[in-house]
Amino acid sequence: MTATEAEQAAMHRALALADTVRGHTSPNPAVGAVVLAPDGTLAGEGATAPAGGAHAEVAALAAAGDAARGGTAVVTLEPCAHTGRTGPCTEALVAAGITRVVYAVDDPNPEAAGGATVLRERGIDVVAGVEEHAAASGALRPWLHATRTGRPFVTWKYAATLDGRVAAADWSARWISSAASREDAHALRAVVDAIVVGSGTVLTDDPQLTVRGGDQIPALRQPLRVVLDRRHRIPDDARVLDDAAETLVLDTAVPRFALKALHDRGVRQVLLEGGPTLAGAFVEARCVDEVIVYLAPTLLGAGPAALGDAGIGTLAEAAALDIESVSRIGDDIKVVARPRWAEQAMED
Amino acid sequence: MTATEAEQAAMHRALALADTVRGHTSPNPAVGAVVLAPDGTLAGEGATAPAGGAHAEVAALAAAGDAARGGTAVVTLEPCAHTGRTGPCTEALVAAGITRVVYAVDDPNPEAAGGATVLRERGIDVVAGVEEHAAASGALRPWLHATRTGRPFVTWKYAATLDGRVAAADWSARWISSAASREDAHALRAVVDAIVVGSGTVLTDDPQLTVRGGDQIPALRQPLRVVLDRRHRIPDDARVLDDAAETLVLDTAVPRFALKALHDRGVRQVLLEGGPTLAGAFVEARCVDEVIVYLAPTLLGAGPAALGDAGIGTLAEAAALDIESVSRIGDDIKVVARPRWAEQAMED
Repeated sequence: MTATEAEQAAMHRALALADTVRGHTSPNPAVGAVVLAPDGTLAGEGATAPAGGAHAEVAALAAAGDAARGGTAVVTLEPCAHTGRTGPCTEALVAAGITRVVYAVDDPNPEAAGGATVLRERGIDVVAGVEEHAAASGALRPWLHATRTGRPFVTWKYAATLDGRVAAADWSARWISSAASREDAHALRAVVDAIVVGSGTVLTDDPQLTVRGGDQIPALRQPLRVVLDRRHRIPDDARVLDDAAETLVLDTAVPRFALKALHDRGVRQVLLEGGPTLAGAFVEARCVDEVIVYLAPTLLGAGPAALGDAGIGTLAEAAALDIESVSRIGDDIKVVARPRWAEQAMED
Repeated sequence: MTATEAEQAAMHRALALADTVRGHTSPNPAVGAVVLAPDGTLAGEGATAPAGGAHAEVAALAAAGDAARGGTAVVTLEPCAHTGRTGPCTEALVAAGITRVVYAVDDPNPEAAGGATVLRERGIDVVAGVEEHAAASGALRPWLHATRTGRPFVTWKYAATLDGRVAAADWSARWISSAASREDAHALRAVVDAIVVGSGTVLTDDPQLTVRGGDQIPALRQPLRVVLDRRHRIPDDARVLDDAAETLVLDTAVPRFALKALHDRGVRQVLLEGGPTLAGAFVEARCVDEVIVYLAPTLLGAGPAALGDAGIGTLAEAAALDIESVSRIGDDIKVVARPRWAEQAMED
């Protein structure tokens, strides 16, 4: 059984809906859903509400009302069959009179999986795997990673000169990259659950680590600010400790311990914004799942390199990446890459 | 007066002809020429022969023979009006009965310039500036640069990891970049007059610095191999001293002195293949006119950076580049950039 053209189009819409709630749903996945009436027309749509709120299917069913009866639900993730803070979506779909469900990605969560089986047992047509790759590599990626590995998805972001320096010899680093790159990098903060830095970055740059709009007004939702400060070095008046957002100071510098603590708090995606030392620790621990680099068209010839000691002694041990994209942004070059070990983690 | 469509097409052909002799004409420029018969059809074509041989116009006239009479010469550079190792091209054009000359770039060489004036005085139609930018930024670029500045055009090429390392902590560097990048970089050698390294590179890597074909057979023409070895450190059995090509060992590490010596020997384009120390000296002296970088999709976190001390202490002093192109090659990213100071040198 395959999806119809109308269902394919509905899936594209569901993917777009999921994108709009990235970073706002953890520990739940960012899911999009569309309900089609029996005649194939749009009856309702929805996306995951913040944790504790409605799942995407339930939001779309609510929007569709009676028009859902005899209709089709198109969802980016297999509907859950378990009761968490909300009831199982499978039951909601049955109760609304849905007769067919089309979804993209199987739910890998052992607690919630089995939704497709439950639906089929209730006499509902189920089509799985529609736009599976787009969904799995898009808004669902962090959650899928976290579900499979037990730790948040980590994006390491840095800006460097073409010769790989993140600051000059005197540690001046403002601004290495162009305004366009800084804006792009800032936008990453809005879609993650937590921003992680080391105490060194707090001591050197004293960043506030908040999300602000183009008008510099703080966003309503702020990611958790996390400082790894094993030796209790950061001062009480550090900007990262102000009341603009929640802050967690962890007294570990071990990436896996820190990520475990964050996962336990519901964090599913982390933006690593620290300096070379912290980045080295995360690379050495293979706790980087995505690398986003802004390369400025400048040369320095001195100053700290982007990546500090990662325990790599010889070329054969170099961490291999797959380049996902290379683009120009402002005057800079933006590179998005994935460590090969991230693929392995996905397959585990 | 503007060029006709047939003359425009002939200019594109002339540009392509010039490309075929890049790196084979110094100290003369790599020029292409096409002769059109009075009816606009192709009568002959040519490109600069190795130094002491025919200029492009003369080669094209020879190929055209009598068909040149009453015809048009289309040339990438203003025909010379002086006698060097060959006679003035202006005289050859007049003698062949050419009645119209179309060219791209004015000759900036004070000795040879004035060709257009001479031709007009002899009653020949002259159209200047056709495809000027393409010609000036193509095969003519190194020669134009050398004529204007008195030193060779310098291309600095390196391969680094995404985090900017040109070798690992143990200095292993074989191979940082992919086979496709290495082949591309190797092809650069075939179009330069000289390859420059420092003694450090000879001591560490012992490279042969020759041009070889895909079959590993040495090319007929080999660029001059140059080692900057102020302290007479390189051993007699270094591969760069073998008889596969000519080698010049200079006992200076000062870029401007070395480039002056090379210019005096007729070198117009140099490929800088040395390590971080030599690159730092050239960047500090503003003796780099083009940067070609192969970035491999790997991370090392330790090992030498691409660019050593270039006398830059703070971010405001960073050397600014203009990115000319960013492309994917094999698994790598290739970046071609020009230092801003190179533009200034062109305008001086």
